[in-house]
Amino acid sequence: MERHFERSLEELKERLLWMGSLAERAVHQAVHSVLDADETLAQTVLREENTINELQIEIDDRVVQLLALQQLMAADLRFVLAIARINNDLERIGDQAVNIAHSATRIVRHPRVKPYVDLPRMGELAEKMMRDSLDSLVRRDIELARSVLSRDDQVDQLRDQIFRELLSYMMGDSSVVFPAFELILVAKNLERIADHATNVAEDVIYMVAGSDVRHPAVDRNTA
Amino acid sequence: MERHFERSLEELKERLLWMGSLAERAVHQAVHSVLDADETLAQTVLREENTINELQIEIDDRVVQLLALQQLMAADLRFVLAIARINNDLERIGDQAVNIAHSATRIVRHPRVKPYVDLPRMGELAEKMMRDSLDSLVRRDIELARSVLSRDDQVDQLRDQIFRELLSYMMGDSSVVFPAFELILVAKNLERIADHATNVAEDVIYMVAGSDVRHPAVDRNTA
Repeated sequence: MERHFERSLEELKERLLWMGSLAERAVHQAVHSVLDADETLAQTVLREENTINELQIEIDDRVVQLLALQQLMAADLRFVLAIARINNDLERIGDQAVNIAHSATRIVRHPRVKPYVDLPRMGELAEKMMRDSLDSLVRRDIELARSVLSRDDQVDQLRDQIFRELLSYMMGDSSVVFPAFELILVAKNLERIADHATNVAEDVIYMVAGSDVRHPAVDRNTA
Repeated sequence: MERHFERSLEELKERLLWMGSLAERAVHQAVHSVLDADETLAQTVLREENTINELQIEIDDRVVQLLALQQLMAADLRFVLAIARINNDLERIGDQAVNIAHSATRIVRHPRVKPYVDLPRMGELAEKMMRDSLDSLVRRDIELARSVLSRDDQVDQLRDQIFRELLSYMMGDSSVVFPAFELILVAKNLERIADHATNVAEDVIYMVAGSDVRHPAVDRNTA
């Protein structure tokens, strides 16, 4: 029974990491479908959404089975609850990739607004946060998880910069209002992907250290 | 022990409903701080965010304690896991109310864009979805929960209408680009509040019926 249980926990983690790699790929492809005006790539992202959704349900089922069949020790319980939350965040990241791919299919119908500079940087930053948050899970690496949290402000600054620039384009030339607005939506989606990566990193810290870092303003350390 | 356990479940639900009522109030006040250009009301929302954040952590602690101390039956396990997820959605609704309040503090610095028609309607719709999703939890009312799900498309249609109208204002008069953009962000926040209310309703259905309705495209009925 013990060994079977250990194997179930290991399988749960592997399925979650597989889901993470699908979500990462979806984000990467979605961002590039916008940057390269590649509608075929956008369609690939839209086609693969269902696989991520199916995995979310499978992983939730595994969580329920583990909790129902076994009285868990505190550390295992934290692990399973963190997996359940990360599962949720990864599925939402998949949703954001789908939103970006939808924007790409609309952006290609307009002339290109401007050479993209900040948007690719924001995309790379968000992708790196996702990858590092999942690596911090694999390696149970709290320092790496903390470094993900510390990057969230950079993402917000880039978003504000992108907003300001695109709004000033809109003011200067009313013909770019529609495509510039789509790029604003893409920046919002990237911001949310970074937020979800931050949530994953917080859950890794909770899982490994048993401390809750979600609301620094709330004076409280253990969960 | 049994009676103590029942009482813990009841307390868990009551704390969650208290959190729900705080989140509802935050949304209501935030929307009205925009519509009435009421900066004092916006500040009230910003001040009260911490209470919601503290409640989220308290409720998560109660969930962990219940799962750690007790081997739960399937129905109780579904109940506790649904509460944990709803807790998360309510906290995110609080975040969206804060975003709307921040927008309000920026909107008041600009002349009013236009008489608001669709935005108050979208606000009312989102608030009603929140209230009904929580009522469906109290009354374990699957029909009411399903009616919340069915309203999500209306919210998306209103959002698209608001976007189109504000973008055409931006094209006609470049001086309204900034305040109109803030109103677009408010509409995006209301859309997310409605999404979270939809998640809550899905969790109520999962809790009461044991069926997972999150991805209708995925051919699967029980969790």
